[in-house]
Amino acid sequence: MAPRVDQLLTLDVAGIRDGMQRGSLKATQLTEAYLAQIEKCENDVQAFSWHDAEYARAQAADLDRYRSLGLPLGPLHGVPVAVKDIIDTADIPTENGCEADLGRVPTKDAYVIERLKAAGAIMIGKTVTTELAFMQPGKTRNPHNLAHTPGGSSQGSAAAVAAAMTPLAIGTQTGGSVIRPASFCGVTGFKPTFGRIPRRGVLSQSPSLDTVGVFARTPLDAAALSDALFGADAEDTATRFMPPARLFETAAQPSPLPPVFALVRPPGWEQASEEVHEAFAELAEALGEQVFEVDLPSLFNEAAEVRERINYAEMARCYYPYWRKSAAVLSEKVLTAIEAGNQILARDYIAALDVPKVLSAALEEIFGRCDAIICPAALGPAPEGLDSTGDSLFNGLWTLTGHPAVTLPLLRSSNDLPMGVQLVGERGNDARLLRTANWLAHWSATDQDG
Amino acid sequence: MAPRVDQLLTLDVAGIRDGMQRGSLKATQLTEAYLAQIEKCENDVQAFSWHDAEYARAQAADLDRYRSLGLPLGPLHGVPVAVKDIIDTADIPTENGCEADLGRVPTKDAYVIERLKAAGAIMIGKTVTTELAFMQPGKTRNPHNLAHTPGGSSQGSAAAVAAAMTPLAIGTQTGGSVIRPASFCGVTGFKPTFGRIPRRGVLSQSPSLDTVGVFARTPLDAAALSDALFGADAEDTATRFMPPARLFETAAQPSPLPPVFALVRPPGWEQASEEVHEAFAELAEALGEQVFEVDLPSLFNEAAEVRERINYAEMARCYYPYWRKSAAVLSEKVLTAIEAGNQILARDYIAALDVPKVLSAALEEIFGRCDAIICPAALGPAPEGLDSTGDSLFNGLWTLTGHPAVTLPLLRSSNDLPMGVQLVGERGNDARLLRTANWLAHWSATDQDG
Repeated sequence: MAPRVDQLLTLDVAGIRDGMQRGSLKATQLTEAYLAQIEKCENDVQAFSWHDAEYARAQAADLDRYRSLGLPLGPLHGVPVAVKDIIDTADIPTENGCEADLGRVPTKDAYVIERLKAAGAIMIGKTVTTELAFMQPGKTRNPHNLAHTPGGSSQGSAAAVAAAMTPLAIGTQTGGSVIRPASFCGVTGFKPTFGRIPRRGVLSQSPSLDTVGVFARTPLDAAALSDALFGADAEDTATRFMPPARLFETAAQPSPLPPVFALVRPPGWEQASEEVHEAFAELAEALGEQVFEVDLPSLFNEAAEVRERINYAEMARCYYPYWRKSAAVLSEKVLTAIEAGNQILARDYIAALDVPKVLSAALEEIFGRCDAIICPAALGPAPEGLDSTGDSLFNGLWTLTGHPAVTLPLLRSSNDLPMGVQLVGERGNDARLLRTANWLAHWSATDQDG
Repeated sequence: MAPRVDQLLTLDVAGIRDGMQRGSLKATQLTEAYLAQIEKCENDVQAFSWHDAEYARAQAADLDRYRSLGLPLGPLHGVPVAVKDIIDTADIPTENGCEADLGRVPTKDAYVIERLKAAGAIMIGKTVTTELAFMQPGKTRNPHNLAHTPGGSSQGSAAAVAAAMTPLAIGTQTGGSVIRPASFCGVTGFKPTFGRIPRRGVLSQSPSLDTVGVFARTPLDAAALSDALFGADAEDTATRFMPPARLFETAAQPSPLPPVFALVRPPGWEQASEEVHEAFAELAEALGEQVFEVDLPSLFNEAAEVRERINYAEMARCYYPYWRKSAAVLSEKVLTAIEAGNQILARDYIAALDVPKVLSAALEEIFGRCDAIICPAALGPAPEGLDSTGDSLFNGLWTLTGHPAVTLPLLRSSNDLPMGVQLVGERGNDARLLRTANWLAHWSATDQDG
């Protein structure tokens, strides 16, 4: 029996996969449901920088024809995915949120686009990014309250999932650009271990930090999309060829033991809102013996400055062509960062590159005692106003160290906005982190119901 | 029948291996022969920063005992190897040619020392390096003429092999520190592809350039030593785990076809001596159809400046502790380079790191048409005087690109000093380069005899 139209938007990836395989669901059906939702919400939310209903329909029709041949289906057959506009799509505009790139149309797909096509996904649209994935906001608004920022830089991707205009989206994080907007928009955000998703065809801002990540409704959906994107590519020297990560398969399994969490108050904790402090105290109490508190060594206090130094120095190099040829159209925020980057000495930059190793070594002892670190995803809910994308203080640390991080929309502020709970896992053990996140999402749902 | 004492010093690695395996040669015998040679030459040449005859004898006695048990022998069983003094040796002084490190005794062996021990080699002594492997000369003199420099920075290693005080030695190259002293001292020098010999326990000057290399009498001996040193280590992120390189096995085989050489006149060619120009014209004529001339694209003209920028920027970072704590004892040469490095901007440094990829891409077309590039190893023979180690202009280019290079002592200057012929091979194809070098060494010997 075919699902009702109002049920289509609630199907998770496993449900879609099941329907497509059994023949009870068509890609065109699902696509029409999402196109209708986009029609309904996009005018308010403004998540897309490029969207063409006919292009989506053509992909869906192709996929239905393919299915009708009885050939084996890709793992994301017929699943819509939205893609941040700093990721190259062949023959489709990719403007990097930057006036200097208006009308830019790449000739080649990024690695992740190749992988989406191979998995049978539908590229439902390109999503709004802040200018050059830095701090100058784009047009997107927070679906939970249009007067509030959706966060940045992957603002369109987070908002599109939050407004159910797509079940899945891809973004990137150099500071906090996946976890923060996911937290503000009340969706699941996943930033994998550094080097797991190849960045060929993605705008380089800071190659030592830039990380492709995903947005979804649940940890299992995030795992299913990430399974398609994890891999290696010779052009991205941060990646390594290795066996499939099997994220979905692992994340869907029950934890062998109830997971243990290390509650961390990261540097800047006192800047978080009182609501965040209270929510985490309650969360710790509810988790009981499954949580212990731990302080990060004092060397973590310099992490934010070190991350910024690496980010700005590499940005000054990577955005040199913009700075040289298009300074007149760049925002003050980008220009200021590039000019700060221009002043950084090589010696200090090289020294900064050593810091992540030291921090990671210090984290090993903590990960030896827990399944995941638990900490806030942001200082509080999405701030009011569209002039700023909020603060990434609680995200940059984990971008610097390259540890995988997930945010789950488990908390709610007094002004009725979502707030994320961030879990951080061991480097390279993304599957276990997603399994732990899946456990916590279910625990939270049960706990709140019960 | 045991070899005569005066024959012992002429045995190559294959001959030693054969004698050790058949039982006609003992490690103690071979060691005594080399100790006698050191006794005879060291006072003049001053190749060693540390040498202890009793330590060498103890190793040899251990190895003979081991052999008498009938156990399988390591590939360098009983072969003396001298080691540049920037390479850590546990419980043996490693002073980096630097007054600030007088009396420094590491507690751990470098990776290459572990490998030497596993191969059954005898660590015959630590060899003189320029101060911190940069340009301020140590005490070593050129065995061919004591009034001339042996080159640098691996001056003791090159001179020790040249004076037959050891058949093999290990050095390092950041600019031209293996190929140049090998050329000046008239021995075979081999700088492998960047990332093939792990640098754990080796003084870091410039991690993007530092390359461990070897000195020997022949390409086959260089291959035999390199076989023991090639590998991967988690602490050296430039290395990758991969199958054994089988350098000796490959290099000892005949080339399937007569090798073809691309004669390159690198930037600065006009600074080379007239003798070098003439020698290479004659060499090209003698090689006939096996050689073609090719110009490097003009972008190679900036290679020296780019290499220096990377070197100085990383040196400013790596030697910061020396500069901070021991500036008073550092040479003007080292201080000037660090101070130049201190001024380099991160943006320019990061831009420089991209250049090797571009240069390597430009070289691919040339390597598609030849077995090896052929070019001079130095501007001329070893200059007179001990205040400078000579110019590395013809070496730095290949250190920057990370291509493997060999120098063979095939030429002789009018003042009767050796001059090296440098062969450069494809990245990663060290075995083929050594096979080609072996071919050229034999061709040259036959050509000159005939």
